[in-house]
Amino acid sequence: MKKETLAEIITIGDELLYGQVIDTNSAWMGEELAKIGIKVKQITSISDSPTAIREALAAAMSRADVVLVTGGLGPTKDDLTKHTLAEFFQTELQLHQPSLEDVEAIFKRYNRPMLEVNRQQAFLPANCTPVRNVLGTAPGMLFEEQGTVIVSMPGVPFEMKRMMTDTVLPHLQQHFQLPQIIHKVVQTVGLGESFLAERIADWENNLPANLKLAYLPHLAGVRLRLTGLPNGTDNLEEQMQAQIDQLAPLIADHVFAFGEVTLEAAVGALLKARNLTISTAESCTGGLVAHKLTSVPGSSAYFTGSVVAYSNEVKKAQLGVPQETLARHGAVSEETVRLMAEGVRRLLNTDIGVATSGIAGPDGGTPEKPVGTIWLAYADAHQTVARKISYNKTRLLNIEYTTLQVLNLIRQSLPAAVEE
Amino acid sequence: MKKETLAEIITIGDELLYGQVIDTNSAWMGEELAKIGIKVKQITSISDSPTAIREALAAAMSRADVVLVTGGLGPTKDDLTKHTLAEFFQTELQLHQPSLEDVEAIFKRYNRPMLEVNRQQAFLPANCTPVRNVLGTAPGMLFEEQGTVIVSMPGVPFEMKRMMTDTVLPHLQQHFQLPQIIHKVVQTVGLGESFLAERIADWENNLPANLKLAYLPHLAGVRLRLTGLPNGTDNLEEQMQAQIDQLAPLIADHVFAFGEVTLEAAVGALLKARNLTISTAESCTGGLVAHKLTSVPGSSAYFTGSVVAYSNEVKKAQLGVPQETLARHGAVSEETVRLMAEGVRRLLNTDIGVATSGIAGPDGGTPEKPVGTIWLAYADAHQTVARKISYNKTRLLNIEYTTLQVLNLIRQSLPAAVEE
Repeated sequence: MKKETLAEIITIGDELLYGQVIDTNSAWMGEELAKIGIKVKQITSISDSPTAIREALAAAMSRADVVLVTGGLGPTKDDLTKHTLAEFFQTELQLHQPSLEDVEAIFKRYNRPMLEVNRQQAFLPANCTPVRNVLGTAPGMLFEEQGTVIVSMPGVPFEMKRMMTDTVLPHLQQHFQLPQIIHKVVQTVGLGESFLAERIADWENNLPANLKLAYLPHLAGVRLRLTGLPNGTDNLEEQMQAQIDQLAPLIADHVFAFGEVTLEAAVGALLKARNLTISTAESCTGGLVAHKLTSVPGSSAYFTGSVVAYSNEVKKAQLGVPQETLARHGAVSEETVRLMAEGVRRLLNTDIGVATSGIAGPDGGTPEKPVGTIWLAYADAHQTVARKISYNKTRLLNIEYTTLQVLNLIRQSLPAAVEE
Repeated sequence: MKKETLAEIITIGDELLYGQVIDTNSAWMGEELAKIGIKVKQITSISDSPTAIREALAAAMSRADVVLVTGGLGPTKDDLTKHTLAEFFQTELQLHQPSLEDVEAIFKRYNRPMLEVNRQQAFLPANCTPVRNVLGTAPGMLFEEQGTVIVSMPGVPFEMKRMMTDTVLPHLQQHFQLPQIIHKVVQTVGLGESFLAERIADWENNLPANLKLAYLPHLAGVRLRLTGLPNGTDNLEEQMQAQIDQLAPLIADHVFAFGEVTLEAAVGALLKARNLTISTAESCTGGLVAHKLTSVPGSSAYFTGSVVAYSNEVKKAQLGVPQETLARHGAVSEETVRLMAEGVRRLLNTDIGVATSGIAGPDGGTPEKPVGTIWLAYADAHQTVARKISYNKTRLLNIEYTTLQVLNLIRQSLPAAVEE
């Protein structure tokens, strides 16, 4: 079988090591490389130091067919990476006229005086193929040494991405014989990683050798990613779809989408398809359910509004929860949360109303109702459903988890769509 | 001079290499280590493979005094890291009773049946000191081998952070002779990095050699971090405070806090100190202002509730904005947003009401009111203040930026506190 093409990524910059900047470049590059069938073996972040750069580069070249380097370019860093690469490849810098013209053009555009440091940016190692940077002053450099392709790019994300898309990825696809790789994502909610794994164990164990499953857990569920490599015989796309079709029924009640879709977007699509409007009455979630729903473009088609009822006064005056209910059962109770959902539905005149009331903490817990005791409710013309959950991490996590649970409750409680 | 204490971070997981997950753990760990005087030399991300783990671990141990490892734990990964570590240190796994009880307690709390895979998580390498994980089922492991401290933790950020804060960082401070390092943070809002830098240039240029300033920009401002190393002579704490006292007046109008305080917490403290209550009327922010305010523990002391008025119907029926105002000026206008702020203040009977109305995009823009046109208002017993902002990145960034601007508007518009 054909040999895998392996890549390594090296990101240069003290700001990455001190945590002042989160390295988002590597994830983007890793995903783009995966799409064209190149597997990233290692990502290494190092400081702005020639020794660190030389060591990391030598190690990466000994393991990988492709080494992508970002950062350490640009005038303020004195083009550290460039000088180190020239030395590493035992060559020297020479002026690259087209790059100089690009830099000059940029300064002309902003009519700023061009400094000598910027002119220096057009000097590149003699053995490299320059990679044009139309968005910045630091050109990229492509090397082919000892059977490895090395590309050095600026750390500025939008400059790097443009160079990858325009030049680097196409070059790699030409240069290597790459296998077809397909990723398929199944989004689940409401089942922990180990329970999900148990539920689909037989299916997973019977996966053909060319298909690999990854569990990517998040706060309220798991993103399942099926990665397919060429199987020699059948059509990979069809083979994978057939497997997904077998998987889906095993976890039907927990699958909210196929592909890269958020839970709030999936719920929004369900509401839109049913032509239903929704409103929320939020106590412990304090508006986060409304924020999630309205973070989806076009949500005004189904989202009308909310009442964040933090104080009991608002629960009574706006949502019509009787003082007597609050006194007898408390604000965090099935009775109250049901009335809140029905109340906001009536008040804002929507098809559906949902509500939350719970103790997000860190204070406010009691022996009978400890922190993390949370009630949810869903109300429409036909039914009111309430659910109790217990979840106690940090205040913010309790709020975020509750919000995802409400979105899931909507998903599960909606009336079936009218068949076209 | 004392030898530097160096650390390396190893993050394990194919999802990091495929770019399905962005590694935010490393940046957080790098920042926390820097705070206690430990310098991160390298961050390495590798796949879920015993060989990769062994190689990365051996390399890191040869270079660093501390090696922090995250990921590769958890039931579905078959505790790969744990088994590899046991093999690497030539020992075997043994049951750790307290860890088993922790795992059992977690399943009890959610009353879910505990699976054998979870029971397996309490088996740890014989040579490790278990690190308690109160938020999850995978305990951490602390090793001291060949003069290096190695700590293995789960990749789940909130579990890792809690273990670092409670156990790992204190242990490292005890175990190593770390230089006294003091960080002082000045939180600013409303001024971009370059403008801020210009404003404080003279002060920054005159900083003593042992003090370093870092600009940490965020969505609506910059976090200034002053890092102090021992200066041999004076008291470092006093020396730094004197510098901060010189800095503060230069940017007084933009400083909202000293130290690690969020803008919403700072605003909450101001409201509490003045014994004032607040409510929000949100259109384009869709509840995010309310969520930010209620994300602060104890916010029920000043936050009463909100009306998320997404549709014009809600703006009219709940907030009392006249149809005529909406018809003549539109929902995104100074007139409407002022009436919304005054309306919610009256409706929920609070001292202060704030409101937002804007076009978050991607759709809904017009030539006169393009996407990113946003109106904010603040109303109390004495005044109503409105402000227009223009900001157009992505829908979510527009919403988040607007929310920070509203919080800043509250901070700037509050009546002066009554002197005690």
